[in-house]
Amino acid sequence: MGPGPVNADPRILRAMSAQLVGQYDPSMTAYMNETMELYRGVFKTENEQTLLIDGTSRAGIEAALVSLISPGDRVLVPIFGRFGHLLREIAERAGAEVHVREIEWGTVFTPAQIEQAIRETKPALLAIVHGDTSTTVAQPLDELGEICERYGVLFYTDVTASLAGNAFEADAWGLDAVTAGLQKCLGGPSGSAPATFSPRAVEAINARKSIEAGIREAGDAVSAHPIRSNYFDLSMIFDYWGPKRLNHHTEATTMLYGARECARLLVDEGIDAAVERHRLHGAAMLAGVQGLGLGVFGDLDHRMNNVVAVHIPEGVTGDAVRGELLNDFGIEIGTSFGPLHGKVWRIGTMGYNARKDSVLTTLAALEQVLRRAGVAVTGGGGVGAAYEVYQDAAGS
Amino acid sequence: MGPGPVNADPRILRAMSAQLVGQYDPSMTAYMNETMELYRGVFKTENEQTLLIDGTSRAGIEAALVSLISPGDRVLVPIFGRFGHLLREIAERAGAEVHVREIEWGTVFTPAQIEQAIRETKPALLAIVHGDTSTTVAQPLDELGEICERYGVLFYTDVTASLAGNAFEADAWGLDAVTAGLQKCLGGPSGSAPATFSPRAVEAINARKSIEAGIREAGDAVSAHPIRSNYFDLSMIFDYWGPKRLNHHTEATTMLYGARECARLLVDEGIDAAVERHRLHGAAMLAGVQGLGLGVFGDLDHRMNNVVAVHIPEGVTGDAVRGELLNDFGIEIGTSFGPLHGKVWRIGTMGYNARKDSVLTTLAALEQVLRRAGVAVTGGGGVGAAYEVYQDAAGS
Repeated sequence: MGPGPVNADPRILRAMSAQLVGQYDPSMTAYMNETMELYRGVFKTENEQTLLIDGTSRAGIEAALVSLISPGDRVLVPIFGRFGHLLREIAERAGAEVHVREIEWGTVFTPAQIEQAIRETKPALLAIVHGDTSTTVAQPLDELGEICERYGVLFYTDVTASLAGNAFEADAWGLDAVTAGLQKCLGGPSGSAPATFSPRAVEAINARKSIEAGIREAGDAVSAHPIRSNYFDLSMIFDYWGPKRLNHHTEATTMLYGARECARLLVDEGIDAAVERHRLHGAAMLAGVQGLGLGVFGDLDHRMNNVVAVHIPEGVTGDAVRGELLNDFGIEIGTSFGPLHGKVWRIGTMGYNARKDSVLTTLAALEQVLRRAGVAVTGGGGVGAAYEVYQDAAGS
Repeated sequence: MGPGPVNADPRILRAMSAQLVGQYDPSMTAYMNETMELYRGVFKTENEQTLLIDGTSRAGIEAALVSLISPGDRVLVPIFGRFGHLLREIAERAGAEVHVREIEWGTVFTPAQIEQAIRETKPALLAIVHGDTSTTVAQPLDELGEICERYGVLFYTDVTASLAGNAFEADAWGLDAVTAGLQKCLGGPSGSAPATFSPRAVEAINARKSIEAGIREAGDAVSAHPIRSNYFDLSMIFDYWGPKRLNHHTEATTMLYGARECARLLVDEGIDAAVERHRLHGAAMLAGVQGLGLGVFGDLDHRMNNVVAVHIPEGVTGDAVRGELLNDFGIEIGTSFGPLHGKVWRIGTMGYNARKDSVLTTLAALEQVLRRAGVAVTGGGGVGAAYEVYQDAAGS
């Protein structure tokens, strides 16, 4: 019940035990095409270039940034938590001239602040996290696409922590590039990064296309300024996933089976229903920790559905409580980074764990562990408050 | 029965369906430590820094090269097949001044040729493929470490296609950096890249260590010239796998289970026994295709145990034969790249497929398909020749 990775849906693990097939076998390329279509549904996009990057969610971020950024490009990174710093770091290593704006952890930017920063820095690219698990808040993105379009700025976001647990619409919100991971609300293991790229992003990326030596044929593209990475060169990855089936990496077949099953389950449930499920169980967990008498960190109006940050009560050693929950009750919760390290616990309700029994069991165990640590908790207050949320939802 | 990826050992797929645990759970960090130790056995090394890169084998190559190369460094890449071109490509994108030497596909370099090239180019790094599946030959490496040491050159090799199917000794041969993949002789799926780095390589890499913003603490390393990639920054990946447990990527747990099981099976069998198994079944396949009257490509004295390249007979459409084998017999074989595309078939005997029944079934099916294509094959000549190899081995 931490901020992710969380335990996977057993149906996804089962899908991953299927035997491999050859990488250009018609059944394998059909799986690849099917996976692209499934993720168009998950991201809510019509983008042709919707595919998997073979690596963790961080690999997806780096593939997007190193492919979109030419060394020297100006990139604007608004930072409201640990993962904004990561975007800055990756953009800098890709050779960008990075401009940052920082706000207090636990808050989000207004569209006017972003527009002002764009006017001041004239970036080629805006790179911003959607939901930053380090602070548990989600940056509203729905008004930023229009601003980016007005100023001719490419618009990238990382939705690893938020996708499928919080409303997200790649096309309606004007995103040019989006990357994710499986290990949060999608209910799978880390190791594959679904991603989608708008025609405008594809055009920018393909302008630097350079087919690698060893498989280059007469007439193939060679750029004087190729993308700095081979593994993350999206112009070749597009051709690998497209009808050319360019020989690039060897697809991580088992991870593809997992990513495909994550999306199949979501599309079966309905992506909006999955978001509503996360909203409900997240609300129950929030009410529960408040019902125990604990304080909650961050701007609750912009809280992610799938994770809540709880102030560690005065006089309590956060890691001792976490250890007792893990060792005696088999329940893992997290701490956080930087200014919040040791100050808050982060409790997740995501993916396979966005369930009533997980929420109630966690609250029941937390009450007992806190009581043993000497905290004056309200007996039954956590589970009771969560039950009320569930009853209200059932009655509505 | 192609040149890889091949179907995985079912025991490995079963290991990959195990439930996830938290990334800093003591059982997870114990699995990570165990995996490091297992791969020390597989690589035959004492290197502390023996770990997994989260991506395909190509990710392992890029992690090694981008971390070892500072922009402007001279790198020597001797090329004897498609994957030598890949090393050149990745080194160039990492900013190296790359010098290549090329020889005819199907042959290998002599140590004297490599030494001569080192004298001429004075590289900081020698990067060379061990077994190049595109040509099916393996470059002897055992004398190159001593040469590299004499000239102060770091020595890197990619053993994706050869490891566990051909003799390899990282320490005895003086390697500084080695990367691999699971999808060939290790019998697993693509998506995790085992790698090992000598103390000398670690020192060179850590000289550029730069802990990323967002998790950097007072006193942490910051380099003026950090490694160009964040995802592939081995100095941080070392700290992630080491006692510091630096928060870098989120380990791809399911792929770790798979990589761990690949190594467990190998260590159970005995790494030398696994190489001998590949030698035996590879020899049976070689004798079999020759027994059918087919010609074999490349220098047989340096042939890899696990793949053979067969000349496509005059008048036969290679892809039609491959299609018939796949669609009617359920057996996949490969073609090759560049100058060999459409000229040879590549038939593998590796990992789970390095078995007598796989060899005999493939030869029996190939005989039938060739006969139907109008090739004058020796009836029973393939299976008979393979049987003789097995009988000789049993009698010896």
